[in-house]
Amino acid sequence: MIPLPEPMRQALAAAAAAAEAGEVPVGAVVMRGGETIAVSANAPRALHDPTAHAEMRVIRDAAARLGRERLEECDLWVTLEPCAMCAGAIAHARIGRLYYAAADPKGGAVEHGPRLFGQPTCHHRPEVYAGIGEAAAAALLRDFFAARR
Amino acid sequence: MIPLPEPMRQALAAAAAAAEAGEVPVGAVVMRGGETIAVSANAPRALHDPTAHAEMRVIRDAAARLGRERLEECDLWVTLEPCAMCAGAIAHARIGRLYYAAADPKGGAVEHGPRLFGQPTCHHRPEVYAGIGEAAAAALLRDFFAARR
Repeated sequence: MIPLPEPMRQALAAAAAAAEAGEVPVGAVVMRGGETIAVSANAPRALHDPTAHAEMRVIRDAAARLGRERLEECDLWVTLEPCAMCAGAIAHARIGRLYYAAADPKGGAVEHGPRLFGQPTCHHRPEVYAGIGEAAAAALLRDFFAARR
Repeated sequence: MIPLPEPMRQALAAAAAAAEAGEVPVGAVVMRGGETIAVSANAPRALHDPTAHAEMRVIRDAAARLGRERLEECDLWVTLEPCAMCAGAIAHARIGRLYYAAADPKGGAVEHGPRLFGQPTCHHRPEVYAGIGEAAAAALLRDFFAARR
């Protein structure tokens, strides 16, 4: 079995930690070349913040750390297909490449729903690579929701 | 001439202050009944945060102030048609009513582009009222961009 790339392993670890904290397990990492700029997980409940998805938090952290508004030469790794809010933020941040693990037919906005990066009003389209780490990311989500039933 | 509703006047004042600070002038207010819960403006440059649109900031502020993840009985007033990121956040926050002033054919995602609230994968649709304060909001934006040419 081919090992997962390090950034996706970091994103999965962040997602697993979120599950332990009672949050829907989604994790994200921003990389610049081989350097990890930020790692975050989903935390809307703990933070009382409906916008606190993993992607939003990691983009905000990375931009703060780099001291600028855009992340042109950065890539984003996330364990779940981004929703419309997060896909919009990825476009605003000018993320170069988006890697996501599991698809999200119910709430995803990259290959489902509005397919945001294909909209004429989308001002920036990252390169998109889907499916890396899909099985592990989906298992985290399945176990989380199974334990809550 | 019919005076503008107080929340839109507050949003326009926040937008005007943003312009003074060199930010694209967009302002937003979250109300609960007659109570102003939060007022914010667009500030991605000052904050080094590509997600710092007026709507995102006002939703985060209101949720923090109320100490919860959702803003079910709240309304959002904003001077410009929300983009996909902000429309997604409005849905996640379960905002009851959305009032916006000027339409945004280039980046708006309510009556333009992905028309997010009409997507089958959108889990919550606010009531939407457009056009209140449109002339004032559009003038702020026009003057801002004219001064930068």
